[in-house]
Amino acid sequence: MEELRAKDLFCALRGWRNENYDVKTRFSDPPLMCIERAAADLLGIIHYGVHVNGYFYNDSGELMMWIGRRSPNKPTYPNMLDNMCAGGLASGLGVRECMMKECGEEASVEDDDLNNLVAVGTVSYCYEDERGVFPECQFVFDLELTSDFVPENADGEVGSFEAHPISKVQELIVTNEFKPNCSLVILDFLIRHGIISPENEPHYVTLVEQIHKPLLDLYS
Amino acid sequence: MEELRAKDLFCALRGWRNENYDVKTRFSDPPLMCIERAAADLLGIIHYGVHVNGYFYNDSGELMMWIGRRSPNKPTYPNMLDNMCAGGLASGLGVRECMMKECGEEASVEDDDLNNLVAVGTVSYCYEDERGVFPECQFVFDLELTSDFVPENADGEVGSFEAHPISKVQELIVTNEFKPNCSLVILDFLIRHGIISPENEPHYVTLVEQIHKPLLDLYS
Repeated sequence: MEELRAKDLFCALRGWRNENYDVKTRFSDPPLMCIERAAADLLGIIHYGVHVNGYFYNDSGELMMWIGRRSPNKPTYPNMLDNMCAGGLASGLGVRECMMKECGEEASVEDDDLNNLVAVGTVSYCYEDERGVFPECQFVFDLELTSDFVPENADGEVGSFEAHPISKVQELIVTNEFKPNCSLVILDFLIRHGIISPENEPHYVTLVEQIHKPLLDLYS
Repeated sequence: MEELRAKDLFCALRGWRNENYDVKTRFSDPPLMCIERAAADLLGIIHYGVHVNGYFYNDSGELMMWIGRRSPNKPTYPNMLDNMCAGGLASGLGVRECMMKECGEEASVEDDDLNNLVAVGTVSYCYEDERGVFPECQFVFDLELTSDFVPENADGEVGSFEAHPISKVQELIVTNEFKPNCSLVILDFLIRHGIISPENEPHYVTLVEQIHKPLLDLYS
């Protein structure tokens, strides 16, 4: 991969991160090998990551969600809207450990607030772009925050944060402003919390099924 | 189908119910036709249904779930453990309407308690037995009840109800006592509520994916 990168044959390798991903068949299997993150998509390797829905109820009892805007300096999806915190699961890190690290670095969430961090499932999907093929599975966490908490970025990856009423978030995720996989994580939140329901969304069944793609079935 | 039933060629048709299911491609499509429920599985037609997780917090703050035991007179899965209420989505019924009807008939839930009924997604899967092929999609609802509520069956379909601590429920769903698809609905509950997590369940990713099978992909 370093040779290919030196020859500049694949645009994917221009995003070299010096961060390793584990290569596994099932997530529960021991890793077969590690691979540079930017190279994983050239080989269609399943990426794992963590995403958190940071939300609170304001003084009027309205459900509000914290939305980040990615830094203009991010190599991928600069300036786009994002979940409160998210990150790729680097080789050797545990899922909850990775999530807590991202919460601290990206949004300065204190340890006390992290007690409310609840694992609520995964969102899985596959897409393709000029860099390669991305079968991805994101571990999703809900984090209910107090109404006086304000996220502050500590690692330069997030430009700003804004809290929106959930109805506004529902409008935002179908715009081109949102990083697409983060839209899916919020769609899952809206479904699990009964905001999108079989009564108000005709494509309910398809939406639930398609954000939980059995990724290994793609290879069988 | 009535001719086939009269000839007693297929055991599936012995369970004739005089209840129609809609036949559709996508759930959001208009029905192409109706078919007797007992005949749907002979043709691999997707069944839709509704299931409710009825739960409460006891006086010690412990999460408890109501589990039903099916009547010994039920034609399918007699005496087996089940969700608090569930039922097939008969032709012409709305999803929430069907769920509320089942809550009333199967567990005598009052209208006031139904205000807490939250749609939380679907569970979809496919199995096969001597009767035919069952691609099924269940609309799942969570219903938090007060600790003094006790379900009472009104239609003879449930033999008895028992409230168990959630840790006990987690043990029960992997026994042969449980109706298998109801185990999957509770598995989804345990995942959404963070009781089963990436830390305590190595097969977390596979479990989430496999209880959300994209059923139409089976036909493509």
